[in-house]
Amino acid sequence: MTSQPYRPAEIVSPYLLFLGDIEDSVSAKMARAVVIWRPEKAVGQLRMTEKTVSVGIEDLSIEEACARGARTLVIGVANSGGKLPSHWRDVICQAIENGMDVASGMHQRLDAIEGVAELARKHGVTLHDIRHSHPPLEVGNGEPRQGKRILTVGTDCSLGKMFSSLALQRGLEEAGFNARFRATGQCGVLVAGEGVAIDAVIADFISGAVEWLSPAAADDQWDIIEGQGSLFHPAYAGVSLGLLHGAQPDYIVMCHELGRPHMRHLPNRPMPDMAACVEASLSAARITNPDVQLAGFSVNTSQVDEATARRELEALSQQFGVPATDPIRFGIEPLVATFTKGAA
Amino acid sequence: MTSQPYRPAEIVSPYLLFLGDIEDSVSAKMARAVVIWRPEKAVGQLRMTEKTVSVGIEDLSIEEACARGARTLVIGVANSGGKLPSHWRDVICQAIENGMDVASGMHQRLDAIEGVAELARKHGVTLHDIRHSHPPLEVGNGEPRQGKRILTVGTDCSLGKMFSSLALQRGLEEAGFNARFRATGQCGVLVAGEGVAIDAVIADFISGAVEWLSPAAADDQWDIIEGQGSLFHPAYAGVSLGLLHGAQPDYIVMCHELGRPHMRHLPNRPMPDMAACVEASLSAARITNPDVQLAGFSVNTSQVDEATARRELEALSQQFGVPATDPIRFGIEPLVATFTKGAA
Repeated sequence: MTSQPYRPAEIVSPYLLFLGDIEDSVSAKMARAVVIWRPEKAVGQLRMTEKTVSVGIEDLSIEEACARGARTLVIGVANSGGKLPSHWRDVICQAIENGMDVASGMHQRLDAIEGVAELARKHGVTLHDIRHSHPPLEVGNGEPRQGKRILTVGTDCSLGKMFSSLALQRGLEEAGFNARFRATGQCGVLVAGEGVAIDAVIADFISGAVEWLSPAAADDQWDIIEGQGSLFHPAYAGVSLGLLHGAQPDYIVMCHELGRPHMRHLPNRPMPDMAACVEASLSAARITNPDVQLAGFSVNTSQVDEATARRELEALSQQFGVPATDPIRFGIEPLVATFTKGAA
Repeated sequence: MTSQPYRPAEIVSPYLLFLGDIEDSVSAKMARAVVIWRPEKAVGQLRMTEKTVSVGIEDLSIEEACARGARTLVIGVANSGGKLPSHWRDVICQAIENGMDVASGMHQRLDAIEGVAELARKHGVTLHDIRHSHPPLEVGNGEPRQGKRILTVGTDCSLGKMFSSLALQRGLEEAGFNARFRATGQCGVLVAGEGVAIDAVIADFISGAVEWLSPAAADDQWDIIEGQGSLFHPAYAGVSLGLLHGAQPDYIVMCHELGRPHMRHLPNRPMPDMAACVEASLSAARITNPDVQLAGFSVNTSQVDEATARRELEALSQQFGVPATDPIRFGIEPLVATFTKGAA
């Protein structure tokens, strides 16, 4: 593996978070990631309609945002398939004409929108395609490497793997661990300022990219690697498996959402069985780390009341013999405690 | 899924098969695929040294090949990582200067070699990057679709999945089935003249690309889908799993090589257990086709004597209750018989 220093170009803040006209709250995850993890970087949000999802910060026009010093229009949306709706073009062009850089986490490149590359050159602004910014890659080799690794995995997409990873990183750091967050998605890369959007690399290099992202390190270095998708999602399982093998985790944290009616974007597909998810993840992970263990569960319980949440978490904890928590509702500490006890 | 008509540009024959200076026989699989499945298209081979692997056809220089009407220099090699060695540049340029098109199945594009794009323009020849020729893709959805599908899977890379698929397609066609070969690798695409090199698509679209490649069809249409890699290969399992989900196979054929000492390119990694491979493949395939079945085994036995081969095939057949054959040594008929009996 090459492991040369590499960093994507810095995305200059303050940001104006653009939400287009999306009405699906989960799609706003780029914007929400900034608001939760880097709130100091966002000056406001721009929504095209009143019905557009809000991430709870001030609505600003491009002119208003510029007057407050905004430097980059961040497309705050990550939709399935990663195409930029053509009717968002005018807002993007207006930002460029006002001297703002533009950052996007879509598969479709910004310069694939008609006229945008030329306009950006004319106004001397930078276009950041976060998903396409990665180092030269090699195929994986699966060789054991030093250092400790925790990977978040999940029963489905978009249910809190990035949040759980960042919360765990912060919790471990506060507990005195040398813990780094390793971003594998466009939101994580935006928050961390570095990483690889793993779903956008050429398929042959999925594992190799993760081996690059979390190279051999000191024995007391903990890499918290952001997981993607689910081994049970018919569109994305390949990414999830390659990531799992490349991450070579010592521990996995299973992420889940209580009350989710079906797998994301697939109304005909029920959520997978939890025991099957745990077993499939551990079984696949053993291919590159025979000693992998389940550390616990990180569950989004926002759809149920507190008593139900506590009961369900306790049931998971009993069934699998590991902690289960909702990091937003009840804090990440039960999971952090697993590692502080283990390291004691 | 969009399913618009799509075909890659035709690669004009006759071909001169270029083997560079490779000494690893398995890497010559592009050239060997042509020699076995489309022998009428190859006018000769070009080897840079005497120690270079031969695919058993006449050695020709570029001038000699041109005199015999060769129209395309086909890079006959598919190496790990897919980079073109820089010292092959002179041969490629010489072919272009002699008016030949060039076709490559490497990840690295031909026009990424210094001066090659300009030279090709000057001489009016076409550069074919087989791995990069694919339609616009969508993410997979896993919805059941009509038609019958057989997928070759494997215990490792490079052990006969393409050969087995092509042999099975031919065998089924001869038995009166409406059977099509669906290519998912650069060699298969070269042989079939169409398909998608699945390891070269963006990771998010692996399953979607296979759904596109083998769309809904008549109930008596059999698609024989070429598999890639192995669920147990730490570099490529993501591709294998996405392909498996997208293929939605009714039947899998497990491909294997007797006597392989370790997984390809990974001397520290023993070959996986066969029962684990079968179970992992069926278990993962059930996610998009709950009725998937193991049809049988296609085993490369070239490293052992005939008595050993027969004994090992019989043992596999006994253990799993399905046919096991070496399609080169003993023919594909035992596998074809599974389907003729099933359809009777």
